[in-house]
Amino acid sequence: MESEFWTEMAGLLGKSYSDRALDSSRCRDKRVLQLLRHKKIPDEPWDDLTIEYFLGKLSAMDSNNFVGNMGVGEREGRVYSKLVAERHYRLMHGIGRSGDIGEMQPKALGSSLINKLSNSLALHAIQLSGIRSCVACRIFPVATGMTLTLCLSFLRKLRPFATRIVWSRIDQRTCVKCMTFTGMEVVVVEQRPTANGNQYLESDVAGLREAISKSPGEVLCVISTTSCFAPRSPDRVVQIAHLCAEFNVPHLVNNAYGLQSEKICNDIDQASRRGRVDLFVQSCDKNFMVPVGGAIVGAFSSDLIDGISTIYPGRASADPSIDLLITLLSMGKSGYLSLINERTTKCYPALRDGIAEWAAQVGETVLSGLLNPISIAVSLRNLDALCPDRPSNVCALGSMLFSRNISGARVVPREAKATIDGLNFQCWGSHISSKNCSYLVVAAAIGMKLEDVHSFLKVLSESYQKFRAKYGRSAE
Amino acid sequence: MESEFWTEMAGLLGKSYSDRALDSSRCRDKRVLQLLRHKKIPDEPWDDLTIEYFLGKLSAMDSNNFVGNMGVGEREGRVYSKLVAERHYRLMHGIGRSGDIGEMQPKALGSSLINKLSNSLALHAIQLSGIRSCVACRIFPVATGMTLTLCLSFLRKLRPFATRIVWSRIDQRTCVKCMTFTGMEVVVVEQRPTANGNQYLESDVAGLREAISKSPGEVLCVISTTSCFAPRSPDRVVQIAHLCAEFNVPHLVNNAYGLQSEKICNDIDQASRRGRVDLFVQSCDKNFMVPVGGAIVGAFSSDLIDGISTIYPGRASADPSIDLLITLLSMGKSGYLSLINERTTKCYPALRDGIAEWAAQVGETVLSGLLNPISIAVSLRNLDALCPDRPSNVCALGSMLFSRNISGARVVPREAKATIDGLNFQCWGSHISSKNCSYLVVAAAIGMKLEDVHSFLKVLSESYQKFRAKYGRSAE
Amino acid sequence: MESEFWTEMAGLLGKSYSDRALDSSRCRDKRVLQLLRHKKIPDEPWDDLTIEYFLGKLSAMDSNNFVGNMGVGEREGRVYSKLVAERHYRLMHGIGRSGDIGEMQPKALGSSLINKLSNSLALHAIQLSGIRSCVACRIFPVATGMTLTLCLSFLRKLRPFATRIVWSRIDQRTCVKCMTFTGMEVVVVEQRPTANGNQYLESDVAGLREAISKSPGEVLCVISTTSCFAPRSPDRVVQIAHLCAEFNVPHLVNNAYGLQSEKICNDIDQASRRGRVDLFVQSCDKNFMVPVGGAIVGAFSSDLIDGISTIYPGRASADPSIDLLITLLSMGKSGYLSLINERTTKCYPALRDGIAEWAAQVGETVLSGLLNPISIAVSLRNLDALCPDRPSNVCALGSMLFSRNISGARVVPREAKATIDGLNFQCWGSHISSKNCSYLVVAAAIGMKLEDVHSFLKVLSESYQKFRAKYGRSAE
Amino acid sequence: MESEFWTEMAGLLGKSYSDRALDSSRCRDKRVLQLLRHKKIPDEPWDDLTIEYFLGKLSAMDSNNFVGNMGVGEREGRVYSKLVAERHYRLMHGIGRSGDIGEMQPKALGSSLINKLSNSLALHAIQLSGIRSCVACRIFPVATGMTLTLCLSFLRKLRPFATRIVWSRIDQRTCVKCMTFTGMEVVVVEQRPTANGNQYLESDVAGLREAISKSPGEVLCVISTTSCFAPRSPDRVVQIAHLCAEFNVPHLVNNAYGLQSEKICNDIDQASRRGRVDLFVQSCDKNFMVPVGGAIVGAFSSDLIDGISTIYPGRASADPSIDLLITLLSMGKSGYLSLINERTTKCYPALRDGIAEWAAQVGETVLSGLLNPISIAVSLRNLDALCPDRPSNVCALGSMLFSRNISGARVVPREAKATIDGLNFQCWGSHISSKNCSYLVVAAAIGMKLEDVHSFLKVLSESYQKFRAKYGRSAE
Repeated sequence: MESEFWTEMAGLLGKSYSDRALDSSRCRDKRVLQLLRHKKIPDEPWDDLTIEYFLGKLSAMDSNNFVGNMGVGEREGRVYSKLVAERHYRLMHGIGRSGDIGEMQPKALGSSLINKLSNSLALHAIQLSGIRSCVACRIFPVATGMTLTLCLSFLRKLRPFATRIVWSRIDQRTCVKCMTFTGMEVVVVEQRPTANGNQYLESDVAGLREAISKSPGEVLCVISTTSCFAPRSPDRVVQIAHLCAEFNVPHLVNNAYGLQSEKICNDIDQASRRGRVDLFVQSCDKNFMVPVGGAIVGAFSSDLIDGISTIYPGRASADPSIDLLITLLSMGKSGYLSLINERTTKCYPALRDGIAEWAAQVGETVLSGLLNPISIAVSLRNLDALCPDRPSNVCALGSMLFSRNISGARVVPREAKATIDGLNFQCWGSHISSKNCSYLVVAAAIGMKLEDVHSFLKVLSESYQKFRAKYGRSAE
Repeated sequence: MESEFWTEMAGLLGKSYSDRALDSSRCRDKRVLQLLRHKKIPDEPWDDLTIEYFLGKLSAMDSNNFVGNMGVGEREGRVYSKLVAERHYRLMHGIGRSGDIGEMQPKALGSSLINKLSNSLALHAIQLSGIRSCVACRIFPVATGMTLTLCLSFLRKLRPFATRIVWSRIDQRTCVKCMTFTGMEVVVVEQRPTANGNQYLESDVAGLREAISKSPGEVLCVISTTSCFAPRSPDRVVQIAHLCAEFNVPHLVNNAYGLQSEKICNDIDQASRRGRVDLFVQSCDKNFMVPVGGAIVGAFSSDLIDGISTIYPGRASADPSIDLLITLLSMGKSGYLSLINERTTKCYPALRDGIAEWAAQVGETVLSGLLNPISIAVSLRNLDALCPDRPSNVCALGSMLFSRNISGARVVPREAKATIDGLNFQCWGSHISSKNCSYLVVAAAIGMKLEDVHSFLKVLSESYQKFRAKYGRSAE
Repeated sequence: MESEFWTEMAGLLGKSYSDRALDSSRCRDKRVLQLLRHKKIPDEPWDDLTIEYFLGKLSAMDSNNFVGNMGVGEREGRVYSKLVAERHYRLMHGIGRSGDIGEMQPKALGSSLINKLSNSLALHAIQLSGIRSCVACRIFPVATGMTLTLCLSFLRKLRPFATRIVWSRIDQRTCVKCMTFTGMEVVVVEQRPTANGNQYLESDVAGLREAISKSPGEVLCVISTTSCFAPRSPDRVVQIAHLCAEFNVPHLVNNAYGLQSEKICNDIDQASRRGRVDLFVQSCDKNFMVPVGGAIVGAFSSDLIDGISTIYPGRASADPSIDLLITLLSMGKSGYLSLINERTTKCYPALRDGIAEWAAQVGETVLSGLLNPISIAVSLRNLDALCPDRPSNVCALGSMLFSRNISGARVVPREAKATIDGLNFQCWGSHISSKNCSYLVVAAAIGMKLEDVHSFLKVLSESYQKFRAKYGRSAE
Repeated sequence: MESEFWTEMAGLLGKSYSDRALDSSRCRDKRVLQLLRHKKIPDEPWDDLTIEYFLGKLSAMDSNNFVGNMGVGEREGRVYSKLVAERHYRLMHGIGRSGDIGEMQPKALGSSLINKLSNSLALHAIQLSGIRSCVACRIFPVATGMTLTLCLSFLRKLRPFATRIVWSRIDQRTCVKCMTFTGMEVVVVEQRPTANGNQYLESDVAGLREAISKSPGEVLCVISTTSCFAPRSPDRVVQIAHLCAEFNVPHLVNNAYGLQSEKICNDIDQASRRGRVDLFVQSCDKNFMVPVGGAIVGAFSSDLIDGISTIYPGRASADPSIDLLITLLSMGKSGYLSLINERTTKCYPALRDGIAEWAAQVGETVLSGLLNPISIAVSLRNLDALCPDRPSNVCALGSMLFSRNISGARVVPREAKATIDGLNFQCWGSHISSKNCSYLVVAAAIGMKLEDVHSFLKVLSESYQKFRAKYGRSAE
């Protein structure tokens, strides 16, 4: 067909001209072929025209787009609204089949291929990020929390007699919910302050050992978390992996937005080599700048990924796979690495140093050391002093920032309690039950711009002043 | 602002002209207001311009789209690819918060509103379909299977001591997986042939009673299924609801594509009034012609819906909500009802009568009565006779149809075994363990066109002939 | 490349599955090939996926979309806004070259091909409409008025000594402007009432003969108009063509929206066979439901079309060609013919009969016979009577209709004068200088819906009543 | 309406949240209001969301998008293909009315407003570029050539007795065609080498004086050209303006891509202050990176712009206006100025110096001095020497460059003749009839990237070597 097409073109345009277009067309087709053959993120970015051309080719392979197709089943990829059809590139069938989210759908070959390719490219991205030993991964079209639940449910199949999850505390509600979802008992092991007298927190490895050792056979798994808000540090996954190996207990790593940190990724890689890491989970949106809705489970054995794929009941949305595929093709390897580089070598240091400088000026302290390579916390002790009876008043600083166009800055008050599905937490938000000061947490995440850092520092300084002026007066 | 805009317009265009545009603009705004106030599917379809205008307004309410917004968190709705941004209307934040999929996100008010509205419109659609007593529903951004799993996990919270699920057998792999996912024991109650000697199948109510009555407190719930492939009939939900009420056991209805049948919906409505129905689940794509990826849980009490919303761990994709919102606004009440009407009064009768006529000519039998209002099965006994030793050869008819542009026609061979997660099934595909003949199943589903029925009948007749010619020869 | 693509596919998806997709892909490619080979409107509509796939292929053939292209010229198809790039399918180079709007651009082969194809398809549409002897046409990316000017400028090249244009009067300002643009003298020949005593108007053939015969060599051309507002009838092009042949004077037909009328098209066809028609011009938007901006010049000799193509100075917008190509592929031959059929056999009779019935009830008269197959005029004598001193007051009926969602209904007051570029017209709007009554004109144009006819009749009746009530009172 | 909308929002989302969204919404609306009030390019770029929101508001003001609109005219903005509707933002009516391209269309207020705004923003851009005295301009939806024709036709209305156009030769076919289109006599005044012995060319002011002075009343106008391929320099518009003032002859400046050069713009500005410039014309695509299809006529008196607007017969495409509006909003003042700055201070010097350096190495000469601020020519004498008998062979270098991804580099052979509409030219391409060497011309135009310069220089060097190697051999 293709050759006939170009024969016609030569007739219509003249051979020498049509040959030049053929050259360029071949160049584009070569990119597609290389993608199909190597299943890796291309070295250089694909332009949008090539991406849409490729998606068009795939979309045409789904039966609902076959010329003349007639559907007599109950699920035929019919679509009512043209707006909906177009925004999904007419890919209507989702991915997976009843038995397996990785399985091919005969009615939807294009969608199936997207599923395959996006998983391959995600694996490449994981390896590029630094988890080089990772051999397989699977994108699930549910966000991180629900994906952790899938992992736990899968582990339950492997360990039907397990009753408890050992958890290195991190104060995110979702993390608690994904454990209580399973109906298992949750054994909470709190963070502890670092030995060197700093104010930041680290994994209580001894506490974890104690929690596991009582009856390892009843432990479904240990859950560690790498990417987290300061002053909590990433869990010491290497040591925890040692423990898990020693007691033969699965190890599930919540690596939500850790792919953007080479340090975290290296730790996971080391952990898998030296100890035991079964599965690690990361968010699509937080690491790859796509909409919320997908997460990736990685493993160091294909069997585990094949296994977890088979527990997902039924079909699923193709959207997270499509978004990730488009995005990784758009970035290219060069673009992805330079985004990470910008974050690591420009934004994070600028944010950290800027906050440290400001803190020194106003008499506050940076609460996170270099241990946390993404998130930075700074004390708000002077503000605490202005609202001695109402610890939560300090949260007004957060609202002030938000109304000044700063989103994502969190104020954690020095005192807060929470009960989540029957579990009680003291000092919720602090990852530890002992009281300290209130603090502000921000993050230098992938996609941040250096100019945002500067603007933020300016707004922070102004808002902090304004808070002091306002509450200082009312306190008098 | 609005009035200043129109003042400018009057200055630029002249007042009388600008007033005419203002009239029309008001007309459009009035539609939006009515939607916000009544939260119902509009009587008449919205045009795409109005839909995109409305989505643009909502999108602008998400903080990532605020003019001048700077993000300093780890999840800021950043997006890398413009293709991705545009296909999602720049709605990046998904829906829900850590604790509750129904909760508002302060950073993403537009997305939150879409979440609210799409749930309200879905409720309206459920009521329009005939389940009038339904008072609340929730769209989950996972397909039917996973949504059934969510329901079961929720019920486990309510009944922590339950160990078994009583299941009126339906031979869809997904249905089995969503039960085994939970780790519960599955008690299979097979279908039985109808009493009147016909060849179609119906719920074994006595068998269900027996399965429940042994130890009702240990039963997590009964799962009945309304929309299914003939010759299975929709479960007798009213009787099953009576049983559940009697034994105080939850009743979960898998209503996958049942909203398109007034008969099925009336049954569920009656069941809820006369007996016990806790939750019923339906597919977004199968009922509303959107892409695979969402399902709706309906209930007759708001508490149940609020409860199930809180077990979903973390955020979730907004896509199914956006697609459903766009689609229901595009249809309008009139469009939705006329689609259902077309299916019920035109396509289904045409398909049923056409098959019956053809079956009579070639000596086959329609295996489904009027009990199944969507799906139709017809025997393939003559083909069975041509491959006495290899029952599965009859499946070649399916391939012949598929390669002739018919998608969705299923051939179920007279013998097939399956083992799914440890459960063994005889005559898998037949919903019953006793052997019968092979058969072909098709469905008259929403969105089908009358001309597709006629084309299908023609292709079926030809392919059947061709099969007989081919295998007849080889059998000689 | 294509075969390598499918080899990869077979490897990824399995050969039997990938073969099915290949079948469908071939089916789509076959459509493209047929289009390239036959350059005709396809029998059946193309779906949007196929259209965008095809446009993507063409777009990739323009040098600005070549992979790795670097531009060092002053016009390189660079584009700043992604919104702009996408809405033009990244086709930036326009069509034509300095010397010829039909010429191929080596830098923009895809655009050049669109130019070729859209002209071929337009020719097919003209022939399908009934002008079967037409052998060539050219789309110009300027609307009808400017295109008529191009035709006149071209004729001036052929007849450098001509000084006058003989014009069968039609009261559209644009028609006058396109003549005065050239600086030529305009000889106005008014319409005259039909001989049969009806109130509608027809060409004054004797008057035209007189105007031509004085000095035929000085006549640049005769301009006749086929599609026009009633009570004017389409000019009697066959007789005018006879005159032009007799005196050897060019004949330019303004067929603005005449393609939608088989009757008008047959007349032009006959005129070209029996007499002389040099060029006829039609609007893209009025005949093919695309945006304003293009017109088509048709001829019965390729030389004339080649000639007129070479007078257009420089490049030009590709948009009208793209829009027409998309639209004709979307319609298919079947769709185009059925639109015309709906107009001719449903909307026009319904509108005509509805107005006649209403007119009879209220004591008004239909002013147009069957001679005008598109436009219908009805007297407003009763309203005239209410504003004896202010003839233009009757125009308020038009505003009333417009504010009731009726666009396109024109009220022509019984008295109005106009001076256009030095030419004075009595009773402007009436195509004749003698006073009659005011009237309302409407049209049954392509794309009209039958339900619009009914709604219009209702609104007309109400508004007419309202006008009488209002002005009747004030007249008392 | 707006306040009611926000009341609903407050009810649905809570007042404090909805207030934050209202803030941002107001911020967006304020931008729109400022645009409407000041009609200037905004200081900072608008994001695409704001642009599409604004276009959506305008589109809704066109009657074809009114809710419930029924059309009973022959031109109702109906659209067949959804692809077409969407790519035009559902703006179907074009711009202008029969009498005037600047006039408002009551049926299409949104389109009319776009027309107004884009003209205002274009004026702002012209002023920002350096033609500060410009007081009015008009975008015509035809490219530069046809727009020059419009200007000439307009001047003919003002000077009905004129018969000749005095033209400072520039070898672009389009420029010749736009004069011959009018049927006027063309008086060609060739360029002449600069006095200082360099090889570049400049206006022959004495020759122009001679051509005008014979009979100024018969001269329609003088056409000068500012942006042109080296070695021609921009015409000395100030001196020519003096001449025109002296003889009272109109002066039309072809400023095709001159807006991107401050130097050229200053010259035009000076020319208008010190002498006579009636109209100057520039390309939309070459200056603003939009698709081919529009040009802008600027003037130093509103009357002239109003006048030229009224000669355009009929409606016209809105596309160039829409594209320009989107683009200027996307750029913002800051973006537009920085594009020009990048071109002037980075790309042009880099290209010029790079070529000079290369030329020195290979023994060629740069043929253009600093007089031409955009285009650079370099001799190809060594290549001429290799094809003494076939001057045109040197063009093969152009093909070699094109096939190596360089588009826009032109090779002008030392000998070439052309006859255009009866005018004969020696050494066509060289702007002068006396033979010299072949040369290569390139341009540093707006939107060029610095990396393109470097890549081009590399490819040029390689291709030149290759040419010498190939023809050197064959010459032996």
